[in-house]
Amino acid sequence: MKLKMMYSFLNSDLAMIEKTLEETVMADSSVLRESSLHLLQAGGKRIRPIFVLLAGQFGDYNIDVIKKAAVALELIHMASLVHDDVIDDADLRRGQPTIKAKWDNKIAMYTGDYIFARSLEVMSDIKKAEAHKVLANTIVEVCIGELQQIKDKYRYEQNIRDYFRRIKRKTALLISASSLVGAIASDVEEKYQKKLYRFGYYVGMSYQIIDDVLDFVATEEELGKPAGGDLLQGNITLPVLYAMEQKEVQKAVKTVHEDMDKKDLEKIIMLIKNSDAIDRSLKVSDLYLAKALKELEGLPNNRSKKALTNIAKYLGKRKY
Amino acid sequence: MKLKMMYSFLNSDLAMIEKTLEETVMADSSVLRESSLHLLQAGGKRIRPIFVLLAGQFGDYNIDVIKKAAVALELIHMASLVHDDVIDDADLRRGQPTIKAKWDNKIAMYTGDYIFARSLEVMSDIKKAEAHKVLANTIVEVCIGELQQIKDKYRYEQNIRDYFRRIKRKTALLISASSLVGAIASDVEEKYQKKLYRFGYYVGMSYQIIDDVLDFVATEEELGKPAGGDLLQGNITLPVLYAMEQKEVQKAVKTVHEDMDKKDLEKIIMLIKNSDAIDRSLKVSDLYLAKALKELEGLPNNRSKKALTNIAKYLGKRKY
Repeated sequence: MKLKMMYSFLNSDLAMIEKTLEETVMADSSVLRESSLHLLQAGGKRIRPIFVLLAGQFGDYNIDVIKKAAVALELIHMASLVHDDVIDDADLRRGQPTIKAKWDNKIAMYTGDYIFARSLEVMSDIKKAEAHKVLANTIVEVCIGELQQIKDKYRYEQNIRDYFRRIKRKTALLISASSLVGAIASDVEEKYQKKLYRFGYYVGMSYQIIDDVLDFVATEEELGKPAGGDLLQGNITLPVLYAMEQKEVQKAVKTVHEDMDKKDLEKIIMLIKNSDAIDRSLKVSDLYLAKALKELEGLPNNRSKKALTNIAKYLGKRKY
Repeated sequence: MKLKMMYSFLNSDLAMIEKTLEETVMADSSVLRESSLHLLQAGGKRIRPIFVLLAGQFGDYNIDVIKKAAVALELIHMASLVHDDVIDDADLRRGQPTIKAKWDNKIAMYTGDYIFARSLEVMSDIKKAEAHKVLANTIVEVCIGELQQIKDKYRYEQNIRDYFRRIKRKTALLISASSLVGAIASDVEEKYQKKLYRFGYYVGMSYQIIDDVLDFVATEEELGKPAGGDLLQGNITLPVLYAMEQKEVQKAVKTVHEDMDKKDLEKIIMLIKNSDAIDRSLKVSDLYLAKALKELEGLPNNRSKKALTNIAKYLGKRKY
């Protein structure tokens, strides 16, 4: 089943959100307008808006209210991607040049700031103090995670706990916040809010681990950017940590630097692919996925629960 | 009279805000903690917190509530300075190395993001939707202004309206937002809210014009950074626009570039100082100041009104 088929009952709502996203980043400034639209039109799975809406379905679902939360969450995510690409010196994302590549680092910094500011503007229409608090806390954690990621680059003595802490902040918390903010905006019962929050968290962890595996096993075409990019940038992900348990791989990984020969990098990628690191990482992802599905059990049976189940399973098996 | 004497009745409240500022930017990450504290301890006039508190004095002043707004506004300002210094390649601010100089551009980008996120966290304790809306709108405008400033660099065909639009977004709106958010947080009567908002706006315009004049007439010691920095960076400010009305100066200004000889730059600075541009700029600043003071007339007579009057006059005459 295709991802979009899993929540087809939300199609018209998601189309409205897509339109609102475009309207929201429209600016008088041509640079801002072009760079923001460029990013938006590069696409993406819109996981965060989907989670907002699906969580909202467990309460008083009002599209005029909840669409604001959905748009805000996607914009926060987008803003973080723009700043991410500056940090990672990334030239490609989803097969398109990044803003920092097409314009420059400074434009990218302010485009990120601008998109983020727009998200706050949209959110300010939601009159739930708790939702704002959740989001603000999440954004602080995301920032701390980003800084940590810079600090942890090429730091080979880090351990798996460092990795988990980093992907929690980098990915999982914003997805769990999406579920929670959607639930709060729709007055979902508190006991369900907690389950939806934890569901988002576990899916997010599982999702990021797969992302980190795909950086090794997917093709450049599937990734929309060169494979092995994380490794080249010094981002030590779970497959790397597992593979480095072998002394030989560890030695090879420690030779990685940004300007290294592409062929040498490919050899190291092969070493990691041929180790058990990929399988072990995917097993951890599966464990998180199982935890996510477990959280759904206590929720009322409706089409949203079914959709969340299918989406979680899909994301846990995705190939790119 | 010294600036601090003008609002001595707020001394203990401001001390509390200073303490809260430090506590708020404390982070587990050593880079974030050090870079944020570095910035905080470099000082500053704390104009925005002062305006928040003074505006609050016209309503139900509750320090436990309003201090959150004051801290949030100063943090937003600080975050914008950090990103500003990246754009302007500035190595010094208030006599201290900037974060981008002491660490690097990437650390500065995320430190700015982090400080900004912390400000949202603090603000989320204020349960007034209107205050959040005002702030979100303001931040959008500030971002647009920053991007505009990048685009307008070395663009000599710009006019005075471009300049005013830019400093409105860059400076005036955040100061007017400070007054307004302080007023909203304290349930100040709406008619007074508007006056306080406009007062902040006019003071902000006057303030920025003086800042731009000081970049030419103050010493490096007074500025805490080399004089003529705006010009060198291609920021076309009001004195430059006025001075460029003379063909000879215009020709000289158009030779400015970032790597130019210091002596050559000094010659151009002298040309501008010796023209009528400085006086004319100060007159415009005075006009804004008069408008600001006019707004105060309709406010109830209290010590806060007296303080605002004195502060406005002081800022309008400041030498650095």
